Amino acid sequence: MKQQMPKVVDHDKRRMSIVRAYLELVGERGMPEANSRALAQKMGISNSLLWRYFDDMNQLIEQAYRTITEDTNARIQRSVHGRCGVEAFNRALDEIFPISYESRIEAKIAVSFWGLTVATRSQAPVTLHEIGEWSQLLSSFLEQAIERGEIAATTPVLAIVRMALATGIQAQVEFALTLSESIAKDLRNSVHDMLSIVAV
Amino acid sequence: MKQQMPKVVDHDKRRMSIVRAYLELVGERGMPEANSRALAQKMGISNSLLWRYFDDMNQLIEQAYRTITEDTNARIQRSVHGRCGVEAFNRALDEIFPISYESRIEAKIAVSFWGLTVATRSQAPVTLHEIGEWSQLLSSFLEQAIERGEIAATTPVLAIVRMALATGIQAQVEFALTLSESIAKDLRNSVHDMLSIVAV
Repeated sequence: MKQQMPKVVDHDKRRMSIVRAYLELVGERGMPEANSRALAQKMGISNSLLWRYFDDMNQLIEQAYRTITEDTNARIQRSVHGRCGVEAFNRALDEIFPISYESRIEAKIAVSFWGLTVATRSQAPVTLHEIGEWSQLLSSFLEQAIERGEIAATTPVLAIVRMALATGIQAQVEFALTLSESIAKDLRNSVHDMLSIVAV
Repeated sequence: MKQQMPKVVDHDKRRMSIVRAYLELVGERGMPEANSRALAQKMGISNSLLWRYFDDMNQLIEQAYRTITEDTNARIQRSVHGRCGVEAFNRALDEIFPISYESRIEAKIAVSFWGLTVATRSQAPVTLHEIGEWSQLLSSFLEQAIERGEIAATTPVLAIVRMALATGIQAQVEFALTLSESIAKDLRNSVHDMLSIVAV
């Protein structure tokens, strides 16, 4: 008789596949209808199997939030690769604003999760995405832009970076609330207009 | 026998007194502990009486959100009365950032409510506070500032106003998540720094 390898079910991989299916579901149906029943149905598994991997819906949303923050980070890294100065600044920022299919799903997850966290404080301490790291990265691009003579040496780099990121966060909140795609684009354009003040 | 006036209980007034007590409770204990039981206890009424005025906790939070937006509006109006230009711009903005006891309570309510709305969409269409009106008001102050020669005539007014308001929104989200008071102040200072670019 052939010896069989034991069937190894990787717990973490299964969890991640559930999170990925959940993100797809939010994209297809929106947050209010992306409930556990719809998710189990989409994956062709039972509700009870789902709860072997997550304690409850809140824990799934928390994991989804951590995943989309990593996704955004990964997109930023890819998008700025080999670029510098104002171009890199703009490309990084474009990944944060909810102006693509992916980043619009992310906005809905993020805003729901923030509200849930404030209301319940059931999670470990939560930061606003990777705002500290994003702030450092964007600042380094504006410092490059000064060195390259693209923007004025007197540019208040940190203030501009903070406000640019804040505008991305507001765009997430406002898109998630209103589902208006034009608001996010208008807000993105505000950062372009503001940067033109310091352009050399 | 003396004729008694019928006891008139004004439904709307009672609702508002519940909302006011709820806002106080959030200030005293934070969102997670400001539940219906604690609220009924604080008001010295029964839980069931509470639910004669609100369908559920979500409806109470929705009313609290509408109330704090009106409160912020009223504070802005008082604060800018008789002022103009950059001074009025700064005073209005100070009422939006979570840098006072009142506005910190407001941040918690707002962020919870936004998350709830995105997750359930059970409410009527929701705007981000009175962002359109606030934007118009702040823009009018910067237009004044240009006329008065306080800032450069080339200032991209709308872009600055949008980013300034966005920074206030991010400060609300970040304060509500982290309860860090210094983050809100740093963000407020960013707007001051940014405005200095266009100062004449």
